[in-house]
Amino acid sequence: MFSVTILGNNSAVPAYERFPTSQLVSFNGNKFLIDCGEGTQMQLMRYKIRYSRISHIFISHLHGDHYFGLIGLINSFGLLNRQQDLHVYGPSPLKEIIGMQLNLASTRLPFELQIHPISSPGKLVENEEIIISCFPTDHRIECFGFLFQEKELPRKLSSQYNKPRSYAYCADTRYDEQMLPHVAEASLLYHESTYLDNQHEKAALRFHSTAKQAATFAKKAKVKRLLLGHFSGQYESIHDFEKEARTIFSASENALQGVTYLI
Amino acid sequence: MFSVTILGNNSAVPAYERFPTSQLVSFNGNKFLIDCGEGTQMQLMRYKIRYSRISHIFISHLHGDHYFGLIGLINSFGLLNRQQDLHVYGPSPLKEIIGMQLNLASTRLPFELQIHPISSPGKLVENEEIIISCFPTDHRIECFGFLFQEKELPRKLSSQYNKPRSYAYCADTRYDEQMLPHVAEASLLYHESTYLDNQHEKAALRFHSTAKQAATFAKKAKVKRLLLGHFSGQYESIHDFEKEARTIFSASENALQGVTYLI
Repeated sequence: MFSVTILGNNSAVPAYERFPTSQLVSFNGNKFLIDCGEGTQMQLMRYKIRYSRISHIFISHLHGDHYFGLIGLINSFGLLNRQQDLHVYGPSPLKEIIGMQLNLASTRLPFELQIHPISSPGKLVENEEIIISCFPTDHRIECFGFLFQEKELPRKLSSQYNKPRSYAYCADTRYDEQMLPHVAEASLLYHESTYLDNQHEKAALRFHSTAKQAATFAKKAKVKRLLLGHFSGQYESIHDFEKEARTIFSASENALQGVTYLI
Repeated sequence: MFSVTILGNNSAVPAYERFPTSQLVSFNGNKFLIDCGEGTQMQLMRYKIRYSRISHIFISHLHGDHYFGLIGLINSFGLLNRQQDLHVYGPSPLKEIIGMQLNLASTRLPFELQIHPISSPGKLVENEEIIISCFPTDHRIECFGFLFQEKELPRKLSSQYNKPRSYAYCADTRYDEQMLPHVAEASLLYHESTYLDNQHEKAALRFHSTAKQAATFAKKAKVKRLLLGHFSGQYESIHDFEKEARTIFSASENALQGVTYLI
């Protein structure tokens, strides 16, 4: 089982019951959280996800809609008497922000919280089954995408199975072909599409992408499927995103909250 | 019009769609927010409250369930191009926490954010119609309650009207009769009741109150009505809180999310 569940699919200001960005990647019983916008813990509860199993959290960048829910989730883990270590990967100031808020409330966590700064592209986590790495995106502040790769099977087994699966998460970004080698041929690609293409100038100015750009990128990267997300709150309906992307890359769909996509 | 709308009524870890503490006080077109737990901005949207009108925010203390939603709300005000000044009152480290998070995202707010440290009891805000003051509660860390008092009417008018109304918010606290003079004869009192009275020892250890204690306090304070809230996530149903309180003080009711209580 290798899947991603969408917890929030909106950008910036929440709107129309769409929460800011957060996704849960499940891999053979392991749970990894990508980004943690405000309300992520409520969404985990709403969708009845056993979130105590989350072992690693990856924060792409320090815009609030990607991490304002982290302190609340960590705090709740403490109140629920979590024992298992928690590993958080993100931009280096994250450690100070979280530490300050825990200190001010005199919080002593009953588990080991390890906050690992991300400063350059490369491998973050590796175990017997999976490799998780990061790569830079083109955003207004330092921002990383994440790649989850199933490990190669031993040669004698690999002939019986498909090739290893992978999930690429491109965080917030302008259209940027420099990311192509990192995500090439992914089983599933998440690429933000904050705007429709009739607002491509606004998208570029704000270091975001359009649905058409996301689809163009997916096609060039030769991925199997594309998930669109990070929709601007200016859109009440998100139907046109999927429609626009499919004119370029047919295996495109909107990332919907509460839905689990197999990888 | 003088009222309070409940945005979140749960303590600590959110549960059963109950959000952490936040309340909106409306007074003749002015809007004041008391506490701002995670997800407050989503609750304001859900209940279709025009939250751009909020001019003052009062944070009782720095436990996360009372302020983790503040940075998100401020950030959203910025993204929505708010122009009006925003005044935040709370424990002094709040300024550093908020400032750090805004700086890290290179956020420049389009409005004036004034964070006023609260360090001692007394008057915080006064205009022609209302006085807002704070008083200490008995909690694990420094914590303030808030009192909203309609001003005395000029003598020639006052005979035609009732006496001025008031709303007392006792934040998080153990049972504490030292608060009585601050809230005496309030039109409406909010007093936390994290637990039922069969857990009064746990309540005292954690610097919280029971429904019975809240009702006893309301009775001694000679208030008109009592609102109970800050329910522990261990309770799926909150029915028994109201029931227990009414055995002591009949004008008791549970603070329900999305409900507006006239003061």
